[in-house]
Amino acid sequence: MEREASELFEEFKELTASEFFRRNKQMLGFSGKIRSLTMVFHELITNSLDAAEEAGIQPEIKIDLKRVSKDHYILKHKDNGPGIPENFITKVYCTMFAGSKFRNIQSRGQQGLGCSGCVLLSQMTTGQPAKVVSGYKNGDKLKGVGMTFKMDVKKNQGLILKKKDVEVDSTGVALELQFKDVSYSLSEQGAYEYIRRTVIGNPHARIIFRDPTGHQYIFERATDEIPPLPKEVLPHPRGVTADDLIFMAKHTDKRRFRSLLGSSLSRMSNKRLNEIEEATGIDLNKRPKDMKWEEAEQIVNLFKEMDFMAPPTSGLIPIGKEQIEKGMKEILNPEFVATTTRKPKTYRGGVAFIIEAGIAYGGDSGRLVGDQKRAEIMRFANRVPLTFDQGSCAITDALKSIDWKRYGIKDLENTPVTVFVNIVSTNVPYLSTGKQSVAPEPEILHEVRQATMKIARSLQKYIKAKKAAKEEAMRSKVFESYVPVVLKEAALISGRNVPEYDEVLAKVTRREKFSKFTSEVQNE
Amino acid sequence: MEREASELFEEFKELTASEFFRRNKQMLGFSGKIRSLTMVFHELITNSLDAAEEAGIQPEIKIDLKRVSKDHYILKHKDNGPGIPENFITKVYCTMFAGSKFRNIQSRGQQGLGCSGCVLLSQMTTGQPAKVVSGYKNGDKLKGVGMTFKMDVKKNQGLILKKKDVEVDSTGVALELQFKDVSYSLSEQGAYEYIRRTVIGNPHARIIFRDPTGHQYIFERATDEIPPLPKEVLPHPRGVTADDLIFMAKHTDKRRFRSLLGSSLSRMSNKRLNEIEEATGIDLNKRPKDMKWEEAEQIVNLFKEMDFMAPPTSGLIPIGKEQIEKGMKEILNPEFVATTTRKPKTYRGGVAFIIEAGIAYGGDSGRLVGDQKRAEIMRFANRVPLTFDQGSCAITDALKSIDWKRYGIKDLENTPVTVFVNIVSTNVPYLSTGKQSVAPEPEILHEVRQATMKIARSLQKYIKAKKAAKEEAMRSKVFESYVPVVLKEAALISGRNVPEYDEVLAKVTRREKFSKFTSEVQNE
Repeated sequence: MEREASELFEEFKELTASEFFRRNKQMLGFSGKIRSLTMVFHELITNSLDAAEEAGIQPEIKIDLKRVSKDHYILKHKDNGPGIPENFITKVYCTMFAGSKFRNIQSRGQQGLGCSGCVLLSQMTTGQPAKVVSGYKNGDKLKGVGMTFKMDVKKNQGLILKKKDVEVDSTGVALELQFKDVSYSLSEQGAYEYIRRTVIGNPHARIIFRDPTGHQYIFERATDEIPPLPKEVLPHPRGVTADDLIFMAKHTDKRRFRSLLGSSLSRMSNKRLNEIEEATGIDLNKRPKDMKWEEAEQIVNLFKEMDFMAPPTSGLIPIGKEQIEKGMKEILNPEFVATTTRKPKTYRGGVAFIIEAGIAYGGDSGRLVGDQKRAEIMRFANRVPLTFDQGSCAITDALKSIDWKRYGIKDLENTPVTVFVNIVSTNVPYLSTGKQSVAPEPEILHEVRQATMKIARSLQKYIKAKKAAKEEAMRSKVFESYVPVVLKEAALISGRNVPEYDEVLAKVTRREKFSKFTSEVQNE
Repeated sequence: MEREASELFEEFKELTASEFFRRNKQMLGFSGKIRSLTMVFHELITNSLDAAEEAGIQPEIKIDLKRVSKDHYILKHKDNGPGIPENFITKVYCTMFAGSKFRNIQSRGQQGLGCSGCVLLSQMTTGQPAKVVSGYKNGDKLKGVGMTFKMDVKKNQGLILKKKDVEVDSTGVALELQFKDVSYSLSEQGAYEYIRRTVIGNPHARIIFRDPTGHQYIFERATDEIPPLPKEVLPHPRGVTADDLIFMAKHTDKRRFRSLLGSSLSRMSNKRLNEIEEATGIDLNKRPKDMKWEEAEQIVNLFKEMDFMAPPTSGLIPIGKEQIEKGMKEILNPEFVATTTRKPKTYRGGVAFIIEAGIAYGGDSGRLVGDQKRAEIMRFANRVPLTFDQGSCAITDALKSIDWKRYGIKDLENTPVTVFVNIVSTNVPYLSTGKQSVAPEPEILHEVRQATMKIARSLQKYIKAKKAAKEEAMRSKVFESYVPVVLKEAALISGRNVPEYDEVLAKVTRREKFSKFTSEVQNE
C-alpha cells in the first residue's frame, strides 16, 4: 500500500514564528520552573536597560512579583525608559523576530524575541492578556496610552482587546503579565540572584524589587554616571564571511563595489581598496548586485592576509574598574576588593572585545552553602549576568585553569570570594543557543586569565598583609601587656618614677601599618 | 541628550525565519565543523527515512561525500521515497517553519527546519545553489523534475534559477549541496558513525555511503520488514494544557465543546464527557469559540483527577527485539547479543513511551580508544541516533546508575560492549534545544534501568557460562592428555589391550555443554 507524494503533501503547511516557539518554548530558554521565571526577568530587565541607555536616561526599574497561588504569579515591571509609541506596542510584544536592535552594536538583547517570548509564555500558561501602559514623547507632548492585548499565535501579531489614552507623569513602560508553572527562588539560578548580579554589573541602574513575601529590596545606584552609548561600528574585514559580503551587496544602495566595501567595513581606506583591486584583479567599479560568490570569497580570503589596524573599539563600552568596584562594594560590602579593565583585544582576527574582572573578599562575598561560605563566580556578557551553563563557559574554564595556590588561595571553591568577569563585545561568541556561555576562543581565555591573575595578586598582597598585621597585632598585644608591667617593676626596683612610654610603645608596635597598606593596594 | 521613542523606533524591523536562523545557525545545531556536517547528515537521512516509510517504501539511501578541498565538500544524497511534487520543492528546501509533519505522530523530524536548514548552511558557506531532482507519481504517471535554486533569505522562500523536466526511473529525491567550514570525521560524533548507528536503529534501511576517500560502504538491510506506519494518535487528556484546549477550540470546525473534546482527545467516552459536565458545571453544548480560559483550566485540572485508561499505544512502533538483534548482529558481528522491548508506559501521566535496549559483547562491539576497547553507549529516540549532549541525557544517567558489578561487569567503561537504548514516543521529552538528550523523567529512568538490567542478566549468564566452559575445557584437556597415557600404561602393566575409551571420555569432559547453553540464552 504505497502512498503518493501528492497525498503526503496534502498536510503541508507553514507555521508562524509564534506558532513555532509555542511548540518549542525551550528554545527561548523557558524550561524548568525556576529557569523560566529567571529568563522572564532577564528579558524584561535587559530591554529596560537597553532602552533607557539608548535614550540617555539613568535607568530605574520597579519590579513587583506577587504570588497568586502555588506556581502562579503576577509580575509588574515598570521602567523609566523612552516608552514605546502606540503603534509599535503590539509589534514589540506580540511579533516574534521583530525589533530595533539588529545592528552591529554592543547591546544586551539582539534577537527580537525577548519581550514577545515573555508574552507568549504568559499566555500559554495563564491565558491572560498582557497589560501595558506606555508613556512617550510625541514632539513636545508627553503622551500616555494603556493597552490590553493578546498574541494571535497563528498570525504572529497582537490582538488589541482594550485601548485608551491615560495620564502619565513621565516616559517609560509599565507591563503586567501573569505566569503559571514558574517558580520564584533564592537559589543561584533564581530571579532574585539575577537582579542582584544585574545591579553589580550595572551600578548606574536603580532597581526596586518587591518579592512575593512583600519584602521590598531597594538596590541603589552606586554611581550616577550613565555609561556612554555604544556606537554602532562597521564590521572589521577579518570578521566577515563571503556570505556577509554577498548579503551586503544584495541589500545596499551603493552603486559600486568600491563604495560598498568602503562604507560597510571598518579600516577600509582607499589604499586598502587599491590593494584589493590589484591583488584580486576584480574591477571595483562594478555594481554590487553583480558581485559573484567567487569574488566575495576571493576578497574575504585576501582580508585574512592583509594587514589591518585592529577593529575600532569606540563601539565597546566597558563598565570600568571604578564602576565595578563601586558595584561590588555596594552589594557585597566586602573587606577587600580589586578590579581591573583590560585593553581591547580581538579574537578570530577581527572581533574586538574587552575583559573586565573584579574580586571581592570578606563581607557578603562568596555564596553561602549550608553554613559554609564558598567561592562565587559571576559571569557577565555586556553587563548581562550569565546564569546557566556555567560548566561549559570559557570564563569558568579560564578561572579554573589559574593556579590559585600561587595567589595564597589554597582552595578557590571553599574561599569566601566573589569573582566577577565581564566580556564586552559587539559579538560575544556564545556557545549555546540560550546565550548563557562563552565559547573558548584562545584570546578570550588568555585575557580572562590575565585580568583575574592581576586582581588575584592584589588580593594575595591583602591577605598576606592581613595575616602579617594579625601576627603583629598579637606581638603588639604581648608588648602592650608586658611592657607596662616590666617598666613599673623596673621603676619600683630602681626607685624611680614610671616614665611616659605610650608614644614609644606605639612606634614599636606600629599598629597603623595595615590599614595604611590596605588603602594603598586598593588605589593601585 | 535624551532621545525620543519615535527616533529609536525608526530602525524597527521584522526578520523572516530564514534571516533569523542565518544570524543564529547554532540554534539549528550548526556549530563546530564536525557537528555541522553530522547535523546535515542527520536532517537529510531523517527526512528520507520518514518519507519512504510514510509512503510504504523500503528505504534505500545513497550518499556520496566528495572533498573538493580542505573543509569544502560536495554532498549528494539520493533516496527512493515518494518524491516531492514540483510545486512543493522550494517550500520544502527554502521556507523555514514549513512542513507536513506538525502532528501528534511518532516521526523522526517535526520542526519544518531540517532540509531548509541544510540549504541555508550550504548557501551561507559556499554561495552555491542547491540542485534537486525529484521523481514522483502524478496519478499513474511517473514525473521527474530537475531544479536549481537558491534561498531568498529576506523572503524566506526559494528562488528558482533553472527548472526542467527530466526522465526518472523511480520515485525519490536526489539532492546536491555544497558545504564549506565543515569536516568529515570518523569520531564518535562524526558523520560516519551517525550512519552506522542509523543502520543499527533502522535495520530495514539500506544505506550506501561513499566517503571522501572514495571508499564505498554498503550497509545492507538486516531485515526486509518495513516497520508498520505509526498512526497519528489523539493527545491523552493528561497530556494537554489549558492553552492546548483553547488553541484547539479556536481552530476547530466542531460546533460544541462536547464534540470538540470527544474528537480531539483520546479515551474521551460519553461517560467521561458526562462526568466532566457534572463535575465542572460547564455546559458542554456551548460553542468551542466561547471557551474561557478558566473553563479550560477547570477541565484540565479535572483531567488530573479522573481515571483514564492509559494512552493508546497504537501510535508507538518500536523497532522490536528481533529487529534490534538483527541490526546489532549485522553491524557489530558480536559474540553475544541480548535485546528487549518493554511494554508501553506513560510519563507525566499522559504521554506513552516504550523503551527498547540491546547489549552486544565481543566482535566489533565497543569503541576502540587507542588500542583499548571501551564500552559504547548508543542512544536513540524514535530510531534516530542521539549524538551530542550525552552527559546530560536520561539514558546515560540510567545506565550509569546501574550496579554493573552485580552483572559480572567490574568496570563498564572498560568493557568491550555496545549498549543500545531506544525511546519510542510521539513526544520524546528532549532536554536541549538541539534534541540531543532526553529529560530525566522518573518513569523513563526506571524503564531504561529495567530494560538494561534484563539484558545485562543475560550477558552475565553468557559470561559466566563462557568462563565455566573455559575452565571445563582446561579440565577436559587435562583428562584428554592424561587418560590415554594412564590407560595405555595400565594396559601394559596388566598385559591387556588398550580399551575403546573415546566415548566415555567425551561424556566425562562434556564439551558440547557450552554451545548448547549459548543458544538457549539467546532464545530466551
